[in-house]
Amino acid sequence: MNFKSDNTAGAAPEVLAALARVNDGVEASYGDDAVTRRLGEKFSALFEKDVAVFPVATGTAANSLAIATLTPHYGAVFCHEGAHIHVDECGAPEFYSQGAKLVPLKGPQGKLTPGAIKAALGHFQRGFVHHPQPATISITQATELGTTYTPAEVEALSRFARAERLSLHMDGARFANALAHLKCRPADITWKAGVDVMSFGVTKNGALAAEAVVFFDPLRAADIAYRRKRAGHLFSKMRFLSVQIEAMLDNGLWLKLAGHANAMATRLREGLKAIPGFAVEQPVEANEVFARLPSLPAMKALEDAGAHFYEWEPPTNGRPLIRLVCSWATRETEVTEFLEAARKSV
Amino acid sequence: MNFKSDNTAGAAPEVLAALARVNDGVEASYGDDAVTRRLGEKFSALFEKDVAVFPVATGTAANSLAIATLTPHYGAVFCHEGAHIHVDECGAPEFYSQGAKLVPLKGPQGKLTPGAIKAALGHFQRGFVHHPQPATISITQATELGTTYTPAEVEALSRFARAERLSLHMDGARFANALAHLKCRPADITWKAGVDVMSFGVTKNGALAAEAVVFFDPLRAADIAYRRKRAGHLFSKMRFLSVQIEAMLDNGLWLKLAGHANAMATRLREGLKAIPGFAVEQPVEANEVFARLPSLPAMKALEDAGAHFYEWEPPTNGRPLIRLVCSWATRETEVTEFLEAARKSV
Amino acid sequence: MNFKSDNTAGAAPEVLAALARVNDGVEASYGDDAVTRRLGEKFSALFEKDVAVFPVATGTAANSLAIATLTPHYGAVFCHEGAHIHVDECGAPEFYSQGAKLVPLKGPQGKLTPGAIKAALGHFQRGFVHHPQPATISITQATELGTTYTPAEVEALSRFARAERLSLHMDGARFANALAHLKCRPADITWKAGVDVMSFGVTKNGALAAEAVVFFDPLRAADIAYRRKRAGHLFSKMRFLSVQIEAMLDNGLWLKLAGHANAMATRLREGLKAIPGFAVEQPVEANEVFARLPSLPAMKALEDAGAHFYEWEPPTNGRPLIRLVCSWATRETEVTEFLEAARKSV
Amino acid sequence: MNFKSDNTAGAAPEVLAALARVNDGVEASYGDDAVTRRLGEKFSALFEKDVAVFPVATGTAANSLAIATLTPHYGAVFCHEGAHIHVDECGAPEFYSQGAKLVPLKGPQGKLTPGAIKAALGHFQRGFVHHPQPATISITQATELGTTYTPAEVEALSRFARAERLSLHMDGARFANALAHLKCRPADITWKAGVDVMSFGVTKNGALAAEAVVFFDPLRAADIAYRRKRAGHLFSKMRFLSVQIEAMLDNGLWLKLAGHANAMATRLREGLKAIPGFAVEQPVEANEVFARLPSLPAMKALEDAGAHFYEWEPPTNGRPLIRLVCSWATRETEVTEFLEAARKSV
Repeated sequence: MNFKSDNTAGAAPEVLAALARVNDGVEASYGDDAVTRRLGEKFSALFEKDVAVFPVATGTAANSLAIATLTPHYGAVFCHEGAHIHVDECGAPEFYSQGAKLVPLKGPQGKLTPGAIKAALGHFQRGFVHHPQPATISITQATELGTTYTPAEVEALSRFARAERLSLHMDGARFANALAHLKCRPADITWKAGVDVMSFGVTKNGALAAEAVVFFDPLRAADIAYRRKRAGHLFSKMRFLSVQIEAMLDNGLWLKLAGHANAMATRLREGLKAIPGFAVEQPVEANEVFARLPSLPAMKALEDAGAHFYEWEPPTNGRPLIRLVCSWATRETEVTEFLEAARKSV
Repeated sequence: MNFKSDNTAGAAPEVLAALARVNDGVEASYGDDAVTRRLGEKFSALFEKDVAVFPVATGTAANSLAIATLTPHYGAVFCHEGAHIHVDECGAPEFYSQGAKLVPLKGPQGKLTPGAIKAALGHFQRGFVHHPQPATISITQATELGTTYTPAEVEALSRFARAERLSLHMDGARFANALAHLKCRPADITWKAGVDVMSFGVTKNGALAAEAVVFFDPLRAADIAYRRKRAGHLFSKMRFLSVQIEAMLDNGLWLKLAGHANAMATRLREGLKAIPGFAVEQPVEANEVFARLPSLPAMKALEDAGAHFYEWEPPTNGRPLIRLVCSWATRETEVTEFLEAARKSV
Repeated sequence: MNFKSDNTAGAAPEVLAALARVNDGVEASYGDDAVTRRLGEKFSALFEKDVAVFPVATGTAANSLAIATLTPHYGAVFCHEGAHIHVDECGAPEFYSQGAKLVPLKGPQGKLTPGAIKAALGHFQRGFVHHPQPATISITQATELGTTYTPAEVEALSRFARAERLSLHMDGARFANALAHLKCRPADITWKAGVDVMSFGVTKNGALAAEAVVFFDPLRAADIAYRRKRAGHLFSKMRFLSVQIEAMLDNGLWLKLAGHANAMATRLREGLKAIPGFAVEQPVEANEVFARLPSLPAMKALEDAGAHFYEWEPPTNGRPLIRLVCSWATRETEVTEFLEAARKSV
Repeated sequence: MNFKSDNTAGAAPEVLAALARVNDGVEASYGDDAVTRRLGEKFSALFEKDVAVFPVATGTAANSLAIATLTPHYGAVFCHEGAHIHVDECGAPEFYSQGAKLVPLKGPQGKLTPGAIKAALGHFQRGFVHHPQPATISITQATELGTTYTPAEVEALSRFARAERLSLHMDGARFANALAHLKCRPADITWKAGVDVMSFGVTKNGALAAEAVVFFDPLRAADIAYRRKRAGHLFSKMRFLSVQIEAMLDNGLWLKLAGHANAMATRLREGLKAIPGFAVEQPVEANEVFARLPSLPAMKALEDAGAHFYEWEPPTNGRPLIRLVCSWATRETEVTEFLEAARKSV
């Protein structure tokens, strides 16, 4: 019963098989290989648009490279106060951008709103040299709270972004989970909704370690290739990075795996809602469940039963809030076992 | 007949098998897993000393993190003018160190000498605020020219380094090849010879993408964990990175594979020396051969015969210099075929 | 009637005279001159302790150098949400520190409290590589709201800082104004209260452009000299920078000028409080007055009468909040004239 | 007899008088003042072209801001191996540019040539992500060896720069001395000869501390205002910075003072050439003389006679090479006295 994170699972068998498949023979190094070229085409097909794709191994690298490409060092990046780039990357976007300022903003359900950014812009006046200059909005899809932005919500943000001449970045570490929930086309929730650049993550989704920075306007990718190399994120045997992503895309594996993770989370939610004393705090629109437990002893009982999870924040009125994350590898029996333990914990 | 680089080959079967072996079940993420802990122990055993080990995916990352940890941003790093960190990493050490200055120096056979550094120190006076402050020496083992430093040569550099209060870094992207040639213990050519920190590379050696920064004095590793995270080089599913290195160390696979690559290079050298008009320019002490060809038409003939390699520098007196690199995957038949083509090319 | 800022005034005559006084003859450059050496001694006398002093020309430089010296690039700096370093320096501390994270916190009267920092520390766990590491507290004396920290308040912060192994920096752009109000010895409100490093400003106080970074523990100044040079803040003709500060210290000129500015602010406060419809929002403990005006037309009337000031934030219930700053050069007649205009504006 | 540097002198009386002249009354801060606006117009008149001007206090700041504005962080800057930016600024251009690579090149008489850059470009291939990308050429006028580039020499460099899409920066710390020698119009040796951006220095020339970054194409100045603020180089009481430069320009004071310094250097050269055993090593085209002394005892005798100067490099065949710098304040009697001592030293 490990619900700590979706990065505690291994990789899907199809991904490992793909590594073996491309292992034979020699290949051009540093991304000039056939697999990586093919990947570019597959992404363009996936998004129904010519895009520029830059595989890297981690989400932090993808986010930081994307943000640094969009943001001058004297720029400001507006994000949700709970955004991974702000709270969980040890300041990586600041390092890559040479000290741009991340501006954390409040927003319901882990989501950023045009209103919140508008209010913040008062402190970042354009052309006023004393202020970091507004440059970028970064949103997370699905969010850190397991919710998703609808196409309309992304559009509202991008309309605002365009009006204010800001770029729009999407951290898609759990993009597959969002898409499996939204059931729209990838284009609808990205470039058609105004996203400029995204971090397309498949590590949590079932790969070993693979993400891609995707530029919907290839012209904006101008210098990311240099930035990637310079940061040590250009793999010499790039085919092994690219093929992980390809394996996830092929036959819709990524959405199948994400759909499973989401389904497990939904099952958790349904089960927990039915247990007196338990509550679920956020809409479950991806693979995460935020459960309000009845008491500290209940949390202790769950742990004693072998459940692993994060306590999300200090208890309120003695009631802990825990985060449960399901992955492509979460088994139904784990969910059942957890719910059983929850019932007994009260 | 691909002799372009040792990173055009795939991964050794043992490495792929190891990925599969650790894939099942959940594991703590971000390096708290069993494989990574085990790797630390194996490195300490390998080097006969407690060391601190930080796996990353690329050599550029390993080198840059090591150098930035050793060097203040107003510091100077002394390296050979042909060093990978200086000529082939797009300024990555400068990026990581916030602009430390790399000082490229000449030296025979691709090797740095105390004398060259001593001469350069005149431009980097200690305590003189107008000069970047001398901080670090970085050497490459095996060198970019396929030669190796002997333990005595490394000791001479480290003695000088200690006298000048400089740190000594070793870029070991081809450390296995050097060791297979030197036939000494890993300790002898590293910490016992005065190396402070090394980049231990196994990607070229036969992994998919795996290197490790090794601190021989764990206390000096103080903050590299933050630097690694901040640069996006901390893998969430770290076991897949660590196990590649483990698979290479187990049963001496790394040295076996490097020994093969070296043997192929030696065979190339012997064969080429026997062909009138061909010459070998550097001692072959690892897996690289620098061959002086008789003429441009000879080079063309080799290419037409299907050989791939780099032309290393513009021709001298009409005679091209090419670099031939052998890998763990180079077949004897490729060498034979190349020598045959060479004989015909004259 | 210019109350826009205390940096719209010129320099005190004594400062200009001092420039002329040291102009003759040659002097060692880059700070090895007699004036700069003397300045070090005068600062040690002033603070009753051996200190290390580094003159620079601007407050932003002083703050950024101080913070970057105290904070690793993966570190966090806790400051008031209204702190100049956070809102008015275009991200200079981030630039100098290579992207440390400034953490803006709320606090009454523009002042930071241990409680606010303690609450924030939950997001910056020590040893957790995903979080920027807590490093520095920066306070402003006098604050951006014209209030001052008492020695007891600074002590409370420094006790907390020591317990959490944080450094304590004081931005003293208006240190003279604070001291003129507190009427304590400089030592009492700085190192005796636990401040590690301060930015000692005299530009606003009556110089042309001169500040100093003061390390109360000279050992901590380790590398600021390199940082200053590298940032282009080491003057070749340093005597002209140092002598400005010396002229301010000599005969207590700095406190005399600050006392005058404070007195003008107090006079403004007293006058405004007596006018129906006007209110003063913050304690006036330095040279700034935050006046709540009765209405927008009243603000317009003041402007029409020739008064210059900043509107501090958008009006509340139709009532604007303006900031009035007095300087060493503010004349009593300006204050009288302003109060007269205020009375008429209602 | 102080010939150590031209920054050991004080400021010209006209500069001090100008400070006093603009001291009265209030002024807009941070460069919105009348003096600074006027300065922009005067520079445009001086250069017979609309230019964008950004005053700062030091040459290192001017150079670093200019270079960082022209060069991406993954860029390469080509300069003479003796350039101040490379050898005497503690890596400031690297700091400002986030680690661009300075490429030091040889060249006769301290001057860079297209040929030297062309040869170096082989190591900096465009579009090859492993190499820093060629971005900027920086030349020094007058050079560190007291020589000057002719308009034809600058044109040759700028033709090459344009062909290679490189920007051309001129470090004009001693621009006045060069111009006083060349006797051409400022435009002829700058933008008409293809210079994009220059550091226009007047500190050595006779100011207290004042330089200006001048963009000959104002559009290229895009973001330097943010960079300047962020680096702490925007003065609040900017009028005091701007007026120093204005005072130097008014009535051609800058050229008059530079002409005097040059004349003193020429007199030194003529005198030294006439003394058996002495030689002058470089053409004297500005205010510096590089004198080859007959022996170490001769150098000692000069020092004993009260002469101050730098020994430039270790002696050759026992003969020291010293640098003698004249300034606006150097008196003829000092020159005479020095020559007298030289004659006696043999």
